[in-house]
Amino acid sequence: MTRAAVGDWLESPVVRNAIIGVILFNAVILGLETSTTVMSRIGPLILMLDRICLAIFVAEIVAKLYAHGLRYFRSGWNIFDFVIVGVALVPAGQGLSVLRALRILRVLRVVSVAPRLRRVVEGFITALPGMGSVFLLMAIIFYIGAVMATKLFGAAFPEWFGDLGNSAYTLFQIMTLESWSMGIVRPVMEAFPYAWMFFVPFIMVTTFAVVNLLVGLIVNSMQDAHSAEDNLKTDAYRDEVLSRLAAIEARLAKSDDTAVSK
Amino acid sequence: MTRAAVGDWLESPVVRNAIIGVILFNAVILGLETSTTVMSRIGPLILMLDRICLAIFVAEIVAKLYAHGLRYFRSGWNIFDFVIVGVALVPAGQGLSVLRALRILRVLRVVSVAPRLRRVVEGFITALPGMGSVFLLMAIIFYIGAVMATKLFGAAFPEWFGDLGNSAYTLFQIMTLESWSMGIVRPVMEAFPYAWMFFVPFIMVTTFAVVNLLVGLIVNSMQDAHSAEDNLKTDAYRDEVLSRLAAIEARLAKSDDTAVSK
Amino acid sequence: MTRAAVGDWLESPVVRNAIIGVILFNAVILGLETSTTVMSRIGPLILMLDRICLAIFVAEIVAKLYAHGLRYFRSGWNIFDFVIVGVALVPAGQGLSVLRALRILRVLRVVSVAPRLRRVVEGFITALPGMGSVFLLMAIIFYIGAVMATKLFGAAFPEWFGDLGNSAYTLFQIMTLESWSMGIVRPVMEAFPYAWMFFVPFIMVTTFAVVNLLVGLIVNSMQDAHSAEDNLKTDAYRDEVLSRLAAIEARLAKSDDTAVSK
Amino acid sequence: MTRAAVGDWLESPVVRNAIIGVILFNAVILGLETSTTVMSRIGPLILMLDRICLAIFVAEIVAKLYAHGLRYFRSGWNIFDFVIVGVALVPAGQGLSVLRALRILRVLRVVSVAPRLRRVVEGFITALPGMGSVFLLMAIIFYIGAVMATKLFGAAFPEWFGDLGNSAYTLFQIMTLESWSMGIVRPVMEAFPYAWMFFVPFIMVTTFAVVNLLVGLIVNSMQDAHSAEDNLKTDAYRDEVLSRLAAIEARLAKSDDTAVSK
Repeated sequence: MTRAAVGDWLESPVVRNAIIGVILFNAVILGLETSTTVMSRIGPLILMLDRICLAIFVAEIVAKLYAHGLRYFRSGWNIFDFVIVGVALVPAGQGLSVLRALRILRVLRVVSVAPRLRRVVEGFITALPGMGSVFLLMAIIFYIGAVMATKLFGAAFPEWFGDLGNSAYTLFQIMTLESWSMGIVRPVMEAFPYAWMFFVPFIMVTTFAVVNLLVGLIVNSMQDAHSAEDNLKTDAYRDEVLSRLAAIEARLAKSDDTAVSK
Repeated sequence: MTRAAVGDWLESPVVRNAIIGVILFNAVILGLETSTTVMSRIGPLILMLDRICLAIFVAEIVAKLYAHGLRYFRSGWNIFDFVIVGVALVPAGQGLSVLRALRILRVLRVVSVAPRLRRVVEGFITALPGMGSVFLLMAIIFYIGAVMATKLFGAAFPEWFGDLGNSAYTLFQIMTLESWSMGIVRPVMEAFPYAWMFFVPFIMVTTFAVVNLLVGLIVNSMQDAHSAEDNLKTDAYRDEVLSRLAAIEARLAKSDDTAVSK
Repeated sequence: MTRAAVGDWLESPVVRNAIIGVILFNAVILGLETSTTVMSRIGPLILMLDRICLAIFVAEIVAKLYAHGLRYFRSGWNIFDFVIVGVALVPAGQGLSVLRALRILRVLRVVSVAPRLRRVVEGFITALPGMGSVFLLMAIIFYIGAVMATKLFGAAFPEWFGDLGNSAYTLFQIMTLESWSMGIVRPVMEAFPYAWMFFVPFIMVTTFAVVNLLVGLIVNSMQDAHSAEDNLKTDAYRDEVLSRLAAIEARLAKSDDTAVSK
Repeated sequence: MTRAAVGDWLESPVVRNAIIGVILFNAVILGLETSTTVMSRIGPLILMLDRICLAIFVAEIVAKLYAHGLRYFRSGWNIFDFVIVGVALVPAGQGLSVLRALRILRVLRVVSVAPRLRRVVEGFITALPGMGSVFLLMAIIFYIGAVMATKLFGAAFPEWFGDLGNSAYTLFQIMTLESWSMGIVRPVMEAFPYAWMFFVPFIMVTTFAVVNLLVGLIVNSMQDAHSAEDNLKTDAYRDEVLSRLAAIEARLAKSDDTAVSK
């Protein structure tokens, strides 16, 4: 088969749906792997089926690489597929349970294959850059908060504010409002009675920024979507009205000329 | 009475309000049933009144079935009524407290009978399909998260991540941010110091998706409602302007022709 | 003074600002009352100043009653003032600390006097009826949830689900997501492993309804405010265009007639 | 160099980017200061580099003061820079760890220097006054809540409601819904069974006000931004249509006159 024919075949609905089927079947297989009962009975079968699924994914990627050559890597979704499938090929020793756990990420391939899910994720991703400044601001606030908390409370509460990493994690917890007062700030306030002057403004600023980030992201993208088709219709109507008015004016100008020339 | 007459009678305001009255009276009866004081004094009366209410509901459904025949089951609300009332007729042994507790669901019939409540619920339901993709995405994220958490932390924390069900429940708790850090992630991090690399992104992604889902659902349906009547008015105005402009042009064309033909 | 003159005088900026001043001064006095140090030193002075403030409020209400007669009670804000000031006049024994605590509600009078705050509160209140159906739905869901929880878990967990009141409070706590899992549902699930089938849907439905309620309320009132002046402008423009088009048509019709009659 | 030349030079992209570089370098330095390992090895170097950064900031401010004179203090951002850098110059004894922790606030200078971040913060700040009334209302509600809670529960729960400050902090915690029920209200209800009549309405009112505040702030500023350019376009189109209609009418009036005068 020529490269183009392979490419077309891979994009055909039959192959696409077959791949989605394999992904979902693989998801079930990987889910069954978590059950010790199932594994003790039909463990080898499960592992073999998993390998067959993996082989199909590898074959698909190889076929796509053959069809598109290096242009394959121009699409973010292809790179995503490549990495996710590639992870499963890394030879994992028995101890590397993390790498084996990552294999379930293969189920995410369903997002890159199913067009509707793909569009939702692309919608999220396109919205992100517009909010880059707020993200940057959050990062700055978190960095400043972590340095201050480490300097102020690090010596007395090493578990929570021992180093920058601990402080950042604890501040993230506080930002989500989880046990911020009973769990963290009240104990801290027993040693530093004015600790609330650091934590309460931190909560206010970050909560405000997060809500801003989330709602902004959404409302914004919605207004855009809503207006796009509306604006097209409005612009078409306006062009129509203006061109008709221009035609009437031209006709009147001509009939005046005729009247004058008579 | 003919079938049509029965159907009209059942839809008449008097019958409708009487049924709402019976539902609300039944709600009070079922509420009183929870009080041991009330039950020890007038228990048999309460149970009898409950049975009378149930009999009225059954009679109403039988009448509706007679009036509409099998078309009765074409309306989702009718099926809803049928199931809710039917649950109460299942012979429940003393031990089946769950089935007896489900009887209170009969109060939900007030939603299917009162038009305004019905419209609110229908509004919610119509909005759901438009968000199907995000729901699907959430389900995928939860499934992947549950498999990963079970594989990574299942052996060490069987109570929270012992199997897929436990993991899914714990991840739901984490998504609602309830005790996620002090209750779950900090203890897990004592055994797996890098556990935050799984949980913090999970929180970010699911929180973002949930907010997206909720706000999206609402703002979307609101914009639609708002625009509908607005657009009707705008379209009517635009048609008016364009047809008037066309009339003026036609008249000018005719008067030009007259001028030329003169 | 005539009744109208008293009414005008009470509405004059000077009197209004003086009353706001007395309210704020009274707020400080009532705040100082909570300090045992202050009370032990200048307690009698504080109590006397509080009584003077109260006397001024009573005088103001009496003056308003003289000025407006029974029409005074037609305004919701006046009834609000009357009740709030009236509470302080109820002779409270030493034990009735609740009634004495309620005296601080007098500070809320600043809302009824300051026009900007009044408008904010009025904005909230006018928005409420539009959401009546959702409120009603929430009440139904809570009632059903409380009856079911009492019947299912009341015997085993009397502290949380002992009667309808306890259950409703616990369900409110669960709706706010406070300790719902670690504090309530996990312990319940040890006795009833399938309890999550009640609580998880309850959380989903109520969270969705609450978010719907809040965001709906706000976005709605905002769109209204935004559109009101926009629509006025658009309607004015549209009327203008249509009347001008009608004028042109009329003129053309006349000139055609002239042409024909010539 | 003349004052103007210094001013222009300070605003040039090269200098601006150099300052951003120094700020980021300083941020890293201040972050490294929190690590005891780093400080034990190259502590003096770190402290010296921090002093060099500070010297550069002081030099920049002095140069700006020379360039602009007292007009320097007309810009809020300049005052912000001045205070933030000035804090670091206060001679801090070893014990004044708070003042030393505040030095990290210098990193916030990146906001005043980077135009995009500056615009985000300015966007937040401009939005605030529009919500002043709601803030004021929140402050009133908090004050009233704190006074009531102190009077009602202060004697029995001095740790939570001992004085106005404690009560306000606890009410803030309750407003964020953190441990409000299991941590605070359930224990209080053991002493005062009707305490929920104070706390549940407080949660409802403040949650509603906060959501109102946040969403309002955001949606509002978004609608404004969205409409601004839309309205400009609409107004331009409307003016165009009306002026063309006026021209057609004028022309028709003239041609009628001609017809009449003929």
